[in-house]
Amino acid sequence: MRTKSFKSIVTNYKAVFFDAFGVLKNHSGLIQDINQTFEYLEKKGIYYYVLTNDSSRSPEELSNWYIKRGLNCITTDKILSSGMLAMEFFKTKLQDGNSVAYLGTRESAHYIETAGLHTVPIGDVDLNHIDHIQSFAFLDDEGFDWNVDINKSINLLRKKNMNVVVANTDKNYPVNKNDISIAIGGLADLVEKILGKKFIRFGKPDAQMFLLAYERALQDIRVKRDEILMVGDTLYTDIIGGNKFGLDTALVLSGNTLPEMASIRIGSSGIIPTYVCESAVIEP
Amino acid sequence: MRTKSFKSIVTNYKAVFFDAFGVLKNHSGLIQDINQTFEYLEKKGIYYYVLTNDSSRSPEELSNWYIKRGLNCITTDKILSSGMLAMEFFKTKLQDGNSVAYLGTRESAHYIETAGLHTVPIGDVDLNHIDHIQSFAFLDDEGFDWNVDINKSINLLRKKNMNVVVANTDKNYPVNKNDISIAIGGLADLVEKILGKKFIRFGKPDAQMFLLAYERALQDIRVKRDEILMVGDTLYTDIIGGNKFGLDTALVLSGNTLPEMASIRIGSSGIIPTYVCESAVIEP
Amino acid sequence: MRTKSFKSIVTNYKAVFFDAFGVLKNHSGLIQDINQTFEYLEKKGIYYYVLTNDSSRSPEELSNWYIKRGLNCITTDKILSSGMLAMEFFKTKLQDGNSVAYLGTRESAHYIETAGLHTVPIGDVDLNHIDHIQSFAFLDDEGFDWNVDINKSINLLRKKNMNVVVANTDKNYPVNKNDISIAIGGLADLVEKILGKKFIRFGKPDAQMFLLAYERALQDIRVKRDEILMVGDTLYTDIIGGNKFGLDTALVLSGNTLPEMASIRIGSSGIIPTYVCESAVIEP
Amino acid sequence: MRTKSFKSIVTNYKAVFFDAFGVLKNHSGLIQDINQTFEYLEKKGIYYYVLTNDSSRSPEELSNWYIKRGLNCITTDKILSSGMLAMEFFKTKLQDGNSVAYLGTRESAHYIETAGLHTVPIGDVDLNHIDHIQSFAFLDDEGFDWNVDINKSINLLRKKNMNVVVANTDKNYPVNKNDISIAIGGLADLVEKILGKKFIRFGKPDAQMFLLAYERALQDIRVKRDEILMVGDTLYTDIIGGNKFGLDTALVLSGNTLPEMASIRIGSSGIIPTYVCESAVIEP
Repeated sequence: MRTKSFKSIVTNYKAVFFDAFGVLKNHSGLIQDINQTFEYLEKKGIYYYVLTNDSSRSPEELSNWYIKRGLNCITTDKILSSGMLAMEFFKTKLQDGNSVAYLGTRESAHYIETAGLHTVPIGDVDLNHIDHIQSFAFLDDEGFDWNVDINKSINLLRKKNMNVVVANTDKNYPVNKNDISIAIGGLADLVEKILGKKFIRFGKPDAQMFLLAYERALQDIRVKRDEILMVGDTLYTDIIGGNKFGLDTALVLSGNTLPEMASIRIGSSGIIPTYVCESAVIEP
Repeated sequence: MRTKSFKSIVTNYKAVFFDAFGVLKNHSGLIQDINQTFEYLEKKGIYYYVLTNDSSRSPEELSNWYIKRGLNCITTDKILSSGMLAMEFFKTKLQDGNSVAYLGTRESAHYIETAGLHTVPIGDVDLNHIDHIQSFAFLDDEGFDWNVDINKSINLLRKKNMNVVVANTDKNYPVNKNDISIAIGGLADLVEKILGKKFIRFGKPDAQMFLLAYERALQDIRVKRDEILMVGDTLYTDIIGGNKFGLDTALVLSGNTLPEMASIRIGSSGIIPTYVCESAVIEP
Repeated sequence: MRTKSFKSIVTNYKAVFFDAFGVLKNHSGLIQDINQTFEYLEKKGIYYYVLTNDSSRSPEELSNWYIKRGLNCITTDKILSSGMLAMEFFKTKLQDGNSVAYLGTRESAHYIETAGLHTVPIGDVDLNHIDHIQSFAFLDDEGFDWNVDINKSINLLRKKNMNVVVANTDKNYPVNKNDISIAIGGLADLVEKILGKKFIRFGKPDAQMFLLAYERALQDIRVKRDEILMVGDTLYTDIIGGNKFGLDTALVLSGNTLPEMASIRIGSSGIIPTYVCESAVIEP
Repeated sequence: MRTKSFKSIVTNYKAVFFDAFGVLKNHSGLIQDINQTFEYLEKKGIYYYVLTNDSSRSPEELSNWYIKRGLNCITTDKILSSGMLAMEFFKTKLQDGNSVAYLGTRESAHYIETAGLHTVPIGDVDLNHIDHIQSFAFLDDEGFDWNVDINKSINLLRKKNMNVVVANTDKNYPVNKNDISIAIGGLADLVEKILGKKFIRFGKPDAQMFLLAYERALQDIRVKRDEILMVGDTLYTDIIGGNKFGLDTALVLSGNTLPEMASIRIGSSGIIPTYVCESAVIEP
């Protein structure tokens, strides 16, 4: 697999979209020296944004994580999350006085509540009084009792037909160097299959996630889609989604796609990045 | 939907295979008057067997459930369960001194242990010492912490390649008139999808389940396959499996398939029972 | 199923997105009296656009079909097709001098060629000289020999890794009152499954189709998403796609979804239109 | 990947089940020196049978193929095919005077007709007179016009509900060193998905195929399942099917599974053969 230096390609673009996990950070913290990349982009006047399928926390909280670790340039307005799309959906569809039942942490719901929406954790739902519940959201894999609350969600959705939103399409995520954990998107697949219904999913590779970031970029700069580079570590979300939306794409080998497997994975998936780079780090 | 009386058809057969749930019993106990059916079969000299995808309890325990409720003729030797196929598999494949890790109750494992096999609940597995674990079994949806133990199972199966058996193919089961619960087969689907591996599944509609019952019947009576009637409430397990194995099939409307939906379900699935009956109850 | 009159709801919107098949036309021609709808919209100053998953013909040809039948207001600029998205993709990704191999009619390819792209029908491809072939497109189910050319496409895609575009996501389409035909989207599913690769699909319910129409509408009028009504006959494309993009949606019962099944289909799919209308026809 | 010599393991068994394609033959003819294997088995008194998912020809015709090439020991009674299971099914389910419509060559149907069944190629079916058509069979990928006859099959199955049998579960097969062709099992998947119905599939890895061979073996010799070795080149049919039926299994690397990929494939699939051998050839 012939790789290109990230520095050599990035200067051809007016803006860069970064995936977060496996590109800017991993289970132990920030990717080493990734701050140099942003110093370089700032110097060159290249705009940048972070696109994440994380619906468990608000852009403010996500931004704080970077700032605490010294990456002050990742401000709230730089972050676009699938949770924002879910919130936007509920704002349009939910009628006054009604509630969204959810699976997730109180934190993940609090974020939705800041938009003026009522939420209720599935654990607090009384299945005999569900008139006020008008939608359902899969927000986070933590914050509830899987044994009890997944079945309770299924039975709620059998009793009443409502819009169901999956705010994170990922099936699993790494918890350390070796182990993974099922993500809320994986649990949503299970429930959807049992019910035979069709849920509404937000997050990469869906075009709506890229549209959200593109509209944000247009507020900062006049830019066409082929002047933007999408940088990600996952072929099935970042790369195919970026390709389809008309962006150039760079696969980095610092996360999900291991260097020794990159060539096989590209060949067997048929998902072809414009470039392959070892990482998104730019040496000074 | 034109239905036939069960009495009118059953006398054409030398043996009958019954599904349990929705045919002989439901969430509140035995189907009313089902004892009359067995009295009639005994009188006519027709043999009968119960085929169940229940891997949580041994044939002895399953038999006791009927006997406690006065159906003394459902003895252990009349019961064929997918758990028996799982046990048979492990007896062949497991090497001495090695263990089967499992998801399920201690009860479901105890049953496997009676065959001389070592088992260990996933909760007791130390992921750093897994040399002695040689197989994995999905046995029951109860008896473990879903939040912790499903992820732990996934990580065990990522660390070591081993035969994985799903001892119950059902995706869900009714817990009362209105509500359902995810079955261990549904959880196994989730884990299989996350891992991208292929598990070994036992239970109807698979031919091996019908073969197990057929071989048992042959110990009692000289019978050809088309002299056996399979009676069940579910098109996708009992009926398609029976049809494929060369049995005649009767769909009963006392369980999973509601009377008002039977015709639509048969039409949309393309699974065609030989007969449709209101229930398996025979009026005296 | 309580339905609303289309007239009573449409005046609440600044713009309307119409699906074509089952809404404006069917296998015998234009839906009777549909011209009245457009007269009414014109009178009220409501903008309208047609969103179609038809990649076999250009917007010009699609427009001509309506004009020939007296619906002169459906001009080229009113039509947004999944074929346009495919063409846009190739313009970005295809390098000079290279070609797109395709399955479809010469007509479907001619349309792509007007954008300056080179195309070659799979029948003309020499599998020993494929250096210049850089992409592959599924355009139409007609115009080639299924026995020979589907297998030839598979073997081309095994020999060389390239971007593969499916320009119409539909699986089948009606050819008369009773019969259906497999669409190119159905053939693409077959090839994708055999190869184990991931194709790029354009068409409803994907957000990119709605974005294309929304951007066109913004050239005509200042409009927010919730001021647009999506009108369609299919829950799984028009309605779920419109809902997700933040539009209000009206399911009409003049096509795919039969009046007697509408309520069951909405219940079993969990896809909930804002309104249900008998048809999109407005009585004068 | 540590491999074993086939000779060293085969003597531990009373009988051997061989897959055909990739084990005994390939696209250019018999595997070189495979005759030596059968000479050795004869000498040692080990029984052998050939299990094939080929439903296009009768056991007689399949046997003739080997005999013409000098392998006289592969007589008709040694061959067990998925076509035999299909024929058995129709004999049980088809009522007198009725017909099986089919996709395949006349040859594939002639074989079914020898059992006294009436067949009609889909091309000869008049969709307005289908009273006598009671079942449908997918037999072979050749012998019909895919453009016309696949759609015609779909519309027949929409007009009338009937048992549908897929007599070969394979999705594709090799036609030369580099190229593959879609098998009838792949076409059946396409039709099943369009219809949303459930077909009856015969062939490995299904237990019924192994049962057929086991019952044949029992006519020749007293043998238990764990005294039989299943030899195949494909993990997803031969090996998982053999394992599940309680046989020991040997994966050979002379066909579908390439030597350099064997270890990765076993690891990623979780399908674990008892042994891995370079080929089934026994050096004298």
